[in-house]
Amino acid sequence: MSSPIDFDRYDRIRPIRWTGEALELLDQRKLPFVVEYRNCATSDDVAAAIHDLTVRGAPAIGIAAAWGVVLASHRIEAPDGAEAAHKLAPAMERLNAARPTAVNLAWALARMRRTLGESGPDWREVIEREARAIETEDLAANRAMGSLGAALMRVGSGVLTHCNTGSLATAGFGTALGVIRAGVAEGRIQRVFAGETRPWLQGARLTVWELQQDGIDATLIADSAASHLMKTGQVQWVVVGADRICANGDVANKIGTYQLAIAARHHGVKFMVVAPSSTVDMGTTSGDMIEIEERDPGELFGVGGSRTVAEGITAWNPVFDVTPHALIDAIVTERGVVETPDTEQMQAMFGA
Amino acid sequence: MSSPIDFDRYDRIRPIRWTGEALELLDQRKLPFVVEYRNCATSDDVAAAIHDLTVRGAPAIGIAAAWGVVLASHRIEAPDGAEAAHKLAPAMERLNAARPTAVNLAWALARMRRTLGESGPDWREVIEREARAIETEDLAANRAMGSLGAALMRVGSGVLTHCNTGSLATAGFGTALGVIRAGVAEGRIQRVFAGETRPWLQGARLTVWELQQDGIDATLIADSAASHLMKTGQVQWVVVGADRICANGDVANKIGTYQLAIAARHHGVKFMVVAPSSTVDMGTTSGDMIEIEERDPGELFGVGGSRTVAEGITAWNPVFDVTPHALIDAIVTERGVVETPDTEQMQAMFGA
Repeated sequence: MSSPIDFDRYDRIRPIRWTGEALELLDQRKLPFVVEYRNCATSDDVAAAIHDLTVRGAPAIGIAAAWGVVLASHRIEAPDGAEAAHKLAPAMERLNAARPTAVNLAWALARMRRTLGESGPDWREVIEREARAIETEDLAANRAMGSLGAALMRVGSGVLTHCNTGSLATAGFGTALGVIRAGVAEGRIQRVFAGETRPWLQGARLTVWELQQDGIDATLIADSAASHLMKTGQVQWVVVGADRICANGDVANKIGTYQLAIAARHHGVKFMVVAPSSTVDMGTTSGDMIEIEERDPGELFGVGGSRTVAEGITAWNPVFDVTPHALIDAIVTERGVVETPDTEQMQAMFGA
Repeated sequence: MSSPIDFDRYDRIRPIRWTGEALELLDQRKLPFVVEYRNCATSDDVAAAIHDLTVRGAPAIGIAAAWGVVLASHRIEAPDGAEAAHKLAPAMERLNAARPTAVNLAWALARMRRTLGESGPDWREVIEREARAIETEDLAANRAMGSLGAALMRVGSGVLTHCNTGSLATAGFGTALGVIRAGVAEGRIQRVFAGETRPWLQGARLTVWELQQDGIDATLIADSAASHLMKTGQVQWVVVGADRICANGDVANKIGTYQLAIAARHHGVKFMVVAPSSTVDMGTTSGDMIEIEERDPGELFGVGGSRTVAEGITAWNPVFDVTPHALIDAIVTERGVVETPDTEQMQAMFGA
């Protein structure tokens, strides 16, 4: 149980590669059939890749945006960081606007801006180091969270996850999938189930593929089979990531998360949210304040180029929902675990 | 509110057509893009069409099977119904084996067998009349249920439905969709939402198309968006069909129904099951006794010919689940409404 995790075995995929000249992003729209990195030479290339879901997952978006700032810096001249920050502001604004819900994007850009503002003539090296730090800290955080989250589980547990929160969604190892990797490596987890995650099928296309690459057996289910699965007693935990965690512990995450939390509570299955502390937004009091991103209704009209719905149909496509803290048993960040989260406990761990 | 429903306007589709020589089944695998009837000349053609989902929906399967018996009768000679029943037993057994969960299939075949057993030299006319009666009684039952179910709703209601329970799934008008048709026609229902219903997408492919044919606006959602929808206050009722209703009011229906019932209860949204009394199986004490059909895991590997999942992935594909009676606010059959169903009330309405 306490043997160290063999990270080389359980964590082989990297979605983001910095070459020194460009950012290479694993094109997640083409997975699992084509493993192809898309070359981003400018910050606008990165913003476009964030917007069109070439790169996805809240932490990965933040990391990509940080490298996007470095790319933008290659096109300007400035005597110091403050002047550079001024000149980079438009590019950073375009990066920030690429996705509305994930707080990590704004967090990473704010960190780059702050670092820039504090740096002198060597600002170029400083922000490249900062982008690298954002990436390596994320990987370290994920590995820490993996052990913290897995420690909550009994040997022989079954888990259900949603969307993709793995190496693909982060610098590596993953958030919720990091807990699953750690739990499998430590022998605590015996059964892994993944929901398809309509409409974009991150679970079907990405999660089960990613786990397969690392030799972890996972069983795919329809999103609507989750409650029936829980009733059979095969899962003891639902483990998901987060796009934003509010000051009261409410969690915005992929559409369907809220439904799983309701079902988990109904069945006495525990519900765990795993995300780096950069996902925590103490400035958002509760989930009611979160803008829920709605994407093209056309995402519901077919799959992979096959249209399945008649012409002229209306659809509603919210891509996130909010799970109230009362339905959450544990929020795991690299700083530690908040059990049965509420404003007081969140403040104690994440307050200024 | 009390004006009669214009059935010509609100009920235009027929999935089953008897020509006198053959059974024509609207091929529901090809909808909504190709409207094509498949010709079944033998009872084994019908059994195959039931098995491969050309025809689907518990009531429609029962009706098709009844006509399948008539087709089989064209190939035998017998002096009376008893002898005919004996000779038709193998064909009826093959029809009965085509789908395991829907009780209407066994019910329709038992009714055909009983009628045969009681008939004399004119048994051919008798069973053709019986098949016709099963079909016309289903349509009448649906129209009656439509009014009974709609009467439970307040003016201005929003409803969410699952799978396809419409004209396509019945002799016409539909069960849960019949209630929605009646509710719209009577001005009680203002908003209709339909879940996609993975993996086979009956909601996306069939329900919204069917309602579109009758001029009823419906909004398609991902199955996992149902709880978020309920939270927004846009729906007051979930209305679904049933494949089997047990003696205690437990309901087997399309996978995902149970999850909707849990979410509905959590939000104070009412939950209605609509099915003809032929779906009630007083011989099954509770849902625990129901065999849940599992279909090919490959149904989760893609949509409409597009594969979305990597090779070598495992999936679990239960296609029904059981909703316990405690989560159901009303069971509507043509005999009347059972509110907050339990064994005693079910016995009072459906007991021998």
